[in-house]
Amino acid sequence: MKKTKTFLVISILSVALGCFAVEGNNDLLTQAKQVFGQLPKAMESEKNPITPEKVKLGKMLFYETRISADGTVSCARCHPLSLYGADGLKKSIGSNCRVNIRNAPTVLNAADLIAQNWTGNRTDFEDGSKKSVINPLTYAMPSHEAAEKILKGIEGYRPLFEAAFPADKDPVNIDNFAKAVGAFGRTLVTPSPFDDFLAGKQDALTQNQKQGLKSFMDLGCAGCHSGAFIGGKTYTKFGIAQPYWKYTKSEPVDNGRYEITKQEDDKYVFKVPDLRNVVKASPYFHDGSVARLDESIRIMSKVQLDKDLAEPQLADISAFLESLTGQIPDDAMEIPILPATR
Amino acid sequence: MKKTKTFLVISILSVALGCFAVEGNNDLLTQAKQVFGQLPKAMESEKNPITPEKVKLGKMLFYETRISADGTVSCARCHPLSLYGADGLKKSIGSNCRVNIRNAPTVLNAADLIAQNWTGNRTDFEDGSKKSVINPLTYAMPSHEAAEKILKGIEGYRPLFEAAFPADKDPVNIDNFAKAVGAFGRTLVTPSPFDDFLAGKQDALTQNQKQGLKSFMDLGCAGCHSGAFIGGKTYTKFGIAQPYWKYTKSEPVDNGRYEITKQEDDKYVFKVPDLRNVVKASPYFHDGSVARLDESIRIMSKVQLDKDLAEPQLADISAFLESLTGQIPDDAMEIPILPATR
Repeated sequence: MKKTKTFLVISILSVALGCFAVEGNNDLLTQAKQVFGQLPKAMESEKNPITPEKVKLGKMLFYETRISADGTVSCARCHPLSLYGADGLKKSIGSNCRVNIRNAPTVLNAADLIAQNWTGNRTDFEDGSKKSVINPLTYAMPSHEAAEKILKGIEGYRPLFEAAFPADKDPVNIDNFAKAVGAFGRTLVTPSPFDDFLAGKQDALTQNQKQGLKSFMDLGCAGCHSGAFIGGKTYTKFGIAQPYWKYTKSEPVDNGRYEITKQEDDKYVFKVPDLRNVVKASPYFHDGSVARLDESIRIMSKVQLDKDLAEPQLADISAFLESLTGQIPDDAMEIPILPATR
Repeated sequence: MKKTKTFLVISILSVALGCFAVEGNNDLLTQAKQVFGQLPKAMESEKNPITPEKVKLGKMLFYETRISADGTVSCARCHPLSLYGADGLKKSIGSNCRVNIRNAPTVLNAADLIAQNWTGNRTDFEDGSKKSVINPLTYAMPSHEAAEKILKGIEGYRPLFEAAFPADKDPVNIDNFAKAVGAFGRTLVTPSPFDDFLAGKQDALTQNQKQGLKSFMDLGCAGCHSGAFIGGKTYTKFGIAQPYWKYTKSEPVDNGRYEITKQEDDKYVFKVPDLRNVVKASPYFHDGSVARLDESIRIMSKVQLDKDLAEPQLADISAFLESLTGQIPDDAMEIPILPATR
């Protein structure tokens, strides 16, 4: 139960901090800065440094359907930026109408999280991109080699891969596909009014939003949903206080990370989702079982903290979460033209 | 056989004009201006005037997957602008993996054509958009009312429909969906180097491209592929000289417009596709049966004109067709953010 203990410690710490900051000097801003910290401009990686050439190619590959089994799936299929990087479905549908086992998390602000999916078998954005290509429930290609062959057959890609990976002799390959998509993904950071507030602009949040932020920290939500991405950095049991499925009506019950590790401690453990743009991310939870944000907040406070929220508090927290809706970088919002099949 | 006669008359006229213009005064530009004419800035419609509010809303609805049966289909699914408004598949795949009966034509430069599909049962862009919503092979919604209900349920759409249709009491409805998408579609005009040439810029085409243009007119291709969209304004039998399926290896043989009209004269009759951005439109023909452009040109000259093209002539025509690759309007290439499900 290591994760739960960590959760509890952070939680208690958070509440303690809350009492200190809000009741001691009423400095909501100071407390929030400590709990959340500064959003980076991009999610840099030493393993895969962001370059303009990789980002350009990666954005194209993000829309590339020709390397999927039925020719309809690209990253953008389940992660459309028009819907803030997720598809609005309970569970995404891949090539040949295969249904994914869990809800698609957004690709925005995702590249620096502890994992790219709910259970942690996709470590980083690059790993996730590469695995998607051969996942039978997504692109469903028979092999990475088959995808490489298609990319090599689209002549217009070669100079773009060469520019992005100048040291490579034979740059059109699946690892570079993953690196390019990863570099693009690492640019998808969405600064929001909450970041203006953290930077000192007191009027970036309404009074209700500030009250919601205070509740969010005081109640213990920020025990897990902390850091610049408001979560996404730890695994935690879903249902510390109550079995989650009693409230989400989930069917079937998902064992979460246990399915990967087979450790009893990992039963019902999932990645804590980051909450940036959460207002845009319906439906909620690992199985998309709940459509409404207010209902999701109510469930979370019940099953994690064993608390019943009063309506005004719930409304304030909803208002605070609105302040996490950010701006997707302009460059990402321009559709790339892909090289033609010839 | 009215269409075929028309084709022959235009064809002979075109060849005659060709002889006159090219051999008489060698004025390729004058002849091309007569045959093709000027590309409009947008494809205006009296029935559905283009307004900024309609275009803004229409672009959003173009990406709206939530009004499809399985939640994955929008206009953009089969008509992605990243691939010049078509999806690169032989036949598009709709909701629940149903396969369309013919190849998806591009949405670029399409709104002013004689029909929106190959056989003419989708008259204009608005009609096509509306019918797609309930076509079991595309969006597959059970009814227009079901789609309306979803649109009404996404609160953020109401003010946008109100702004686009200020005279309507209850503007969120499927006819206005179709008008908005239609207005957006009417902006999708792609001026290309060939238009610069038609405007008098002699060096907009290479020598090979000019030679290809001359062949295109002299051979009779421009008999059908004429006007500002290089086709798209008439129906014609596919296979005037030879059965098309002998060359395309089409399986099964498609009766074309006969399926709609049940007139014997309409057997194997299809809309003449417009050729703007044709280089980007692989695979070719109503069934996507041919992947390569050069092979398509060879087949067309054989089955329509009973001519075997020499290699250099074929290369020149290919080069000319390259000059039809145009620029999609910047506004269209910006991804719209859709209202959230709440």
